[in-house]
Amino acid sequence: MDLHTLNSLNYEEFVKIFGNIVEKCPLISGAVWSSRPFASILELESSVCEFIDSLPSSGHEGLLRCLPDLAGKELISRTLTQESMREQNQAGLTSLSQSERETLTLLNSQYKLKFGFPFVICARMSDKKKIIEALRSRIQNDRVEELGTGIAEVKKICHLRLQDIFFKTSPARL
Amino acid sequence: MDLHTLNSLNYEEFVKIFGNIVEKCPLISGAVWSSRPFASILELESSVCEFIDSLPSSGHEGLLRCLPDLAGKELISRTLTQESMREQNQAGLTSLSQSERETLTLLNSQYKLKFGFPFVICARMSDKKKIIEALRSRIQNDRVEELGTGIAEVKKICHLRLQDIFFKTSPARL
Repeated sequence: MDLHTLNSLNYEEFVKIFGNIVEKCPLISGAVWSSRPFASILELESSVCEFIDSLPSSGHEGLLRCLPDLAGKELISRTLTQESMREQNQAGLTSLSQSERETLTLLNSQYKLKFGFPFVICARMSDKKKIIEALRSRIQNDRVEELGTGIAEVKKICHLRLQDIFFKTSPARL
Repeated sequence: MDLHTLNSLNYEEFVKIFGNIVEKCPLISGAVWSSRPFASILELESSVCEFIDSLPSSGHEGLLRCLPDLAGKELISRTLTQESMREQNQAGLTSLSQSERETLTLLNSQYKLKFGFPFVICARMSDKKKIIEALRSRIQNDRVEELGTGIAEVKKICHLRLQDIFFKTSPARL
């Protein structure tokens, strides 16, 4: 998609295409449509990040609570969003050994119990081994630190989803 | 659901049950989970309203852009959420005459073109005749006024969706 096309989308087209750049938060893409025209893709991405930063702390927690567990029950029941499915697949989370799956399930549960939101990491910038290591390490952090790290990871996920839309989208999707 | 049950829900259960009290905005129910324990249902509802009020103007616009048109293409294609389907059905929007449907489609388009967000009204507190009258009237307003009215209607819709969960939910849903 080129900039001219981007800036000529009405809000319905925009939310349809960008509605899941932040997992299950079409409110955010709906909000950034108000900032058009965008001078660049980077400017669109900055608008998303600024909107996220403007949310209160409870909003950051709410945003993280929209994300699925890695290798969790939504992966098993095949109810992940298309984007999440692809990301978890690329990170090798659809081909875990039984031991790896049990480790992840246990650590995810402990993390959620400690922090009240799920462990979030940009899976496509990682792999199953690194994800388990990061989870083991980050679960030691304090809550404020983890909230910040989770939101930073959401922004990385958003960056890659935007790249996909701009550089890999088939004409049919537009 | 009683208060004890409400306050003992973990965030995943809470977002599953309350995730669509504001249409397609699980971020909001995820955020208000942070305010538990709730002393009453009213306090939960107040937390939702306070969170909505805390959003910047673009966030209010983004929130409205998550709502479907009344008697629009999502009703025809049966892709409305369960809650929206029920509301549009109760207001008689599933049994419009051809003339009523054409009028609503035209007015909805004009409204969206003027304001950049959809016409939002609490359908269950209205009916198809009153909805068409309200749309004819509100399309004359200015943008700031309509943004405020739209958000006030979202809060009414949320109120009724909460009432449904607390007073009409079958045990199976919990």
